[in-house]
Amino acid sequence: MRTVAYVGQHTLETPEAEPTPPGAGQVRIRVAYVGLCGTDLHIVHGNMDARVDLPLVFGHEMSGTIESVGEGVDGWAVGDLVTVMPLDWDGTCPACLAGNTHICQNLDFIGIDSPGALQELWNVPAHTLVRMPEGIALDAAALVEPVAVAVHDVRRSELAPGDRAVVIGGGPIGVLIATVARHFGAEVAVIELDPARRAQIEDLGFATIDPRETDQVAWVEEWTGGAGADVVFEVSGAAAAVLGATSLAKVRGTLVVVAIHPTPREIDLQRVFWRELRILGARVYQRPDFETAVELIADGVIPTDLMITRVVPMEETQAAFADLEAGRAMKILVGVEGSSATEAAGAERSEVPA
Amino acid sequence: MRTVAYVGQHTLETPEAEPTPPGAGQVRIRVAYVGLCGTDLHIVHGNMDARVDLPLVFGHEMSGTIESVGEGVDGWAVGDLVTVMPLDWDGTCPACLAGNTHICQNLDFIGIDSPGALQELWNVPAHTLVRMPEGIALDAAALVEPVAVAVHDVRRSELAPGDRAVVIGGGPIGVLIATVARHFGAEVAVIELDPARRAQIEDLGFATIDPRETDQVAWVEEWTGGAGADVVFEVSGAAAAVLGATSLAKVRGTLVVVAIHPTPREIDLQRVFWRELRILGARVYQRPDFETAVELIADGVIPTDLMITRVVPMEETQAAFADLEAGRAMKILVGVEGSSATEAAGAERSEVPA
Repeated sequence: MRTVAYVGQHTLETPEAEPTPPGAGQVRIRVAYVGLCGTDLHIVHGNMDARVDLPLVFGHEMSGTIESVGEGVDGWAVGDLVTVMPLDWDGTCPACLAGNTHICQNLDFIGIDSPGALQELWNVPAHTLVRMPEGIALDAAALVEPVAVAVHDVRRSELAPGDRAVVIGGGPIGVLIATVARHFGAEVAVIELDPARRAQIEDLGFATIDPRETDQVAWVEEWTGGAGADVVFEVSGAAAAVLGATSLAKVRGTLVVVAIHPTPREIDLQRVFWRELRILGARVYQRPDFETAVELIADGVIPTDLMITRVVPMEETQAAFADLEAGRAMKILVGVEGSSATEAAGAERSEVPA
Repeated sequence: MRTVAYVGQHTLETPEAEPTPPGAGQVRIRVAYVGLCGTDLHIVHGNMDARVDLPLVFGHEMSGTIESVGEGVDGWAVGDLVTVMPLDWDGTCPACLAGNTHICQNLDFIGIDSPGALQELWNVPAHTLVRMPEGIALDAAALVEPVAVAVHDVRRSELAPGDRAVVIGGGPIGVLIATVARHFGAEVAVIELDPARRAQIEDLGFATIDPRETDQVAWVEEWTGGAGADVVFEVSGAAAAVLGATSLAKVRGTLVVVAIHPTPREIDLQRVFWRELRILGARVYQRPDFETAVELIADGVIPTDLMITRVVPMEETQAAFADLEAGRAMKILVGVEGSSATEAAGAERSEVPA
């Protein structure tokens, strides 16, 4: 079978590998689609060379069907449509014992810390499986993982119906957070620098703000009757966004830190103190987030046509990363070879204007 | 009557003033003691010249007895022992309408934004009064306000019995937070640079850490069985403390920002994200915090002998600030003239070693 592997030095290869039968407690999945995300980009950049074992078959956003079932696995059958919640925890660390298995202190993030989905046949622990309904499109289904991130971020914010939420950064996760927050009853505005992205986001019915043209604090004040936003999601990763984010939130409002900030960031703690703000880190997801994400995709809540810019074959994965890095795509899926489902999908989706 | 007023240029005076009768809805208090705090120090430094009207009779930590009662005031009588929750809100801003009157968007902090307690007879709105039990010592009672700050900070942290809490900064508020957190069932360690303060804090039964001698992260890891602290209180105001604070907290732990940070501070957002931390601003107090603070003082929970370094007459207020600034005192009270209660108190309390 073919695989896509990061071999170091910013280089991807597509080596052949011999499939192995699923072990006890595992199933083997015939992978249909794998989404490429920002974390994968970090891997290919070499930023995570100290963490990963090379060569690494990566990929953790996926859809597929069960191809065979290992010993001792109950409740799953060949042909079931599935995605994978790619987290394996030790169950014994203080975080796990306190119920926070998803951020286990020794978490194995499958696709980073162990082999991922960019292979035709992929063995995973049965406990990671998430069932998908018949009739769900397998390309859209590869978005369950990033949608689950958004669901987790919105749940963590404790956003309530009627709240006003600001999303800073209109990339794939920002758009998904905006979509989920609106579905949960919020009014949402998105701050985004790129005009093409702003146009797409407006097409989805969201207000947008270009922070270089508009005084974002004054805009939010006016939008909220002088109160400030109930929830602000920081999805941009930019230092300036973090510094400004606290000025957008109401008294006792919430700032959710979604983006990865590799170096410490300046925060206006005077504002945090003055308004008794709450800043929450939000990382990955829990099983209810995945289950909600499956429902949202099956119910057509997620704008999958906008999200999936296009589908590429395995050997074009490296080129796809170049497009992602240049902001020329929202989400690119890899159609994994040998999956009949892949062949049914159109290769070109909504293209992002350059 | 005599007053103490900040007249600008880092200068205090003690001008005479004519008492005025209490207006409708007010009472007039014969002030016994006024505590000097960090905010007062900011005023005298001139840091708040843009906010305050000069000359300003300041002071907001106090005890006294009702001297006369204005029109329309029910439930209060001459001779009642009282302290004042020095907050006056507009009741109409979005924060007030959401129930957060204590951090009203147009808050009048009495003693900063309007005249304070450093005068023999002080008129205040009756709604600010907090009753104190017979038999409470009036000098100790002047600590109710800072104790209410500590109660608010601990309540805001949602600390639970059995939690492990770290307090960064062992000044007056840090010691009160440690005391209140312990009273609410936590085990508490205090990080403090000054050896004399560490010795005093250890005398109160708390573990202390000198961060220049001890690896504070390793210490807290060991203390908490590898988990990290449930709650960290940042009371130092130091940039380095903020940057290090996130590494002390457990997965889903809480960092409460108590200190004032006049400029933005670097925060390790990667750690906030990775451990799904929660950062909470905490400012002033609400009425239940004041009522709890009165109980804690009346019940002898608060180490008032340690807290009150000494009592000075009104004309020595400026010199008292010099001692506070130099770290030569925990808390200094001003004994306000004309109060018979003042004369009964000893002038010298536990002196902080230099």
